[in-house]
Amino acid sequence: MAYQVAVCGPQHCTEQDRANAVRIGQLLAERGAVVICGGGAGVMAAAAAGARSRDGLVVGVRPAGNRDGASPDLSVTLVTNMGEARNAIIVWSADAVIVVGGSWGTLSELALARRRGEVPVVCLGGWRVLDQRGDPVPGIDHVDTPDAAVDLALRHPAPP
Amino acid sequence: MAYQVAVCGPQHCTEQDRANAVRIGQLLAERGAVVICGGGAGVMAAAAAGARSRDGLVVGVRPAGNRDGASPDLSVTLVTNMGEARNAIIVWSADAVIVVGGSWGTLSELALARRRGEVPVVCLGGWRVLDQRGDPVPGIDHVDTPDAAVDLALRHPAPP
Amino acid sequence: MAYQVAVCGPQHCTEQDRANAVRIGQLLAERGAVVICGGGAGVMAAAAAGARSRDGLVVGVRPAGNRDGASPDLSVTLVTNMGEARNAIIVWSADAVIVVGGSWGTLSELALARRRGEVPVVCLGGWRVLDQRGDPVPGIDHVDTPDAAVDLALRHPAPP
Amino acid sequence: MAYQVAVCGPQHCTEQDRANAVRIGQLLAERGAVVICGGGAGVMAAAAAGARSRDGLVVGVRPAGNRDGASPDLSVTLVTNMGEARNAIIVWSADAVIVVGGSWGTLSELALARRRGEVPVVCLGGWRVLDQRGDPVPGIDHVDTPDAAVDLALRHPAPP
Repeated sequence: MAYQVAVCGPQHCTEQDRANAVRIGQLLAERGAVVICGGGAGVMAAAAAGARSRDGLVVGVRPAGNRDGASPDLSVTLVTNMGEARNAIIVWSADAVIVVGGSWGTLSELALARRRGEVPVVCLGGWRVLDQRGDPVPGIDHVDTPDAAVDLALRHPAPP
Repeated sequence: MAYQVAVCGPQHCTEQDRANAVRIGQLLAERGAVVICGGGAGVMAAAAAGARSRDGLVVGVRPAGNRDGASPDLSVTLVTNMGEARNAIIVWSADAVIVVGGSWGTLSELALARRRGEVPVVCLGGWRVLDQRGDPVPGIDHVDTPDAAVDLALRHPAPP
Repeated sequence: MAYQVAVCGPQHCTEQDRANAVRIGQLLAERGAVVICGGGAGVMAAAAAGARSRDGLVVGVRPAGNRDGASPDLSVTLVTNMGEARNAIIVWSADAVIVVGGSWGTLSELALARRRGEVPVVCLGGWRVLDQRGDPVPGIDHVDTPDAAVDLALRHPAPP
Repeated sequence: MAYQVAVCGPQHCTEQDRANAVRIGQLLAERGAVVICGGGAGVMAAAAAGARSRDGLVVGVRPAGNRDGASPDLSVTLVTNMGEARNAIIVWSADAVIVVGGSWGTLSELALARRRGEVPVVCLGGWRVLDQRGDPVPGIDHVDTPDAAVDLALRHPAPP
């Protein structure tokens, strides 16, 4: 069974986020991991394009009731028809979660991933979460490069 | 974008259902369609095994919160953690739905597929639905062979 | 904790279905049960109106992402934004399920309720389900009157 | 149609969070609002108890497939069987969202509420969200008392 890695990020993202997501998609595909993402624009499309450029498998988990707006680089398009609640499916399906950039939808994925626990959550350029005292809430691995993100995401052995 | 076909059926199925599902999986893969199924035992596992034997792509949409019980022949395993409500995702993601055999869960998939409309719903050996007067409710294509099921499922052109 | 009864049926229903649903809503409210329904038109609106006319509590579990189309007789409107997958929530939340009339959406609720098991599923004027041999699939209590439907639905003691 | 306010917070909360949630539940009920919450322990149970002590209507939207662990103060218990994805239903059903305290699950509710937009999101004692530059991401109303939280939540007119 293949290792499955979620790549999460804003549909409206920076050029840096986009370049990072392409590279992460490439690295994951090169290392044999399936990419799971929201299947839309921005970071999602960039990760899909990166993975496809290396013949990787990419699954898009769409929020709408049809495939409108789905990235052309998806191998499979799941139509959940459940809006942003599909974010939970993305992170539950993942052996590791990589977050690129920040948005409210992206933060919900990060939070749901940490709420689930169990799997590494790696963040490249995203928002920061502080507790009531102003200290960073532990549990997120912040990294500076796509390579570091993928290394951390794949540090655990694949499930049996 | 690949044509996606849902194959639905009981986890506890007859030998005939199982053989039919294997053959349907093979035919779909040979014709380039992605197979979407529940990813569990019985008809689901048989369709997945058939598709994989022809190097097809198979997605399992699991009801539980982890991958326990997932067929080993899946290319990708989606963890929905939403029980049988995942049946809606299976049929919404499909360009055509093939039902093999009968069970309450399978009937919910058939009913959700018809409720959605838009796509062909083909039934091989499944239950029958009658209206209050005892007449068959229209909208289901009943067929007798796996080949006829796949022909009907793929009769429409792929989405753009 | 109150007994919760789902009342399921088509948004486009017959006058007989509508009258039956109003009466069922009244009877359930008189006997202290919370009514859970889809919160839309037809049988759903009729059950809600019946319950409200007896000062009962009615919850509408809506498929859309907002409250458009919600019956004015609901005490609470849940916005699931998950389309017909919300049918699963309706039947999972119920101590008993009453089906009035037939449609594909309604059949999905009946099937999901039976797939779950555990609770009585009572049918007044709905569709019939036959197995491959043409025999009725067991597990549905077909009744002829609203009173009989409510009696069967409430035959079990309330959960602790 | 009643105004519906979501009260979100950790199941493992501080005594201050608990007291705040009780008071918020009381104030919402006194002002005629329906309380929607996760229906479990901690902040959820406290908000439910507060609302019930003022004869308010409280809906618990449970993550599990049954009613185990539901607060005894709920008027209605919705069984979603979809884990933390039910957080989306809680915030979509609300005319305003009040967050009390911090946890990953709570943060996912806050993020989903802001992702939806449209409604006020008021935070009492919760976590803080900073963007990449270290600035607070706008869109959350931070308050210091239960009264201020409820005032802000109810500042908008009820929907028609």
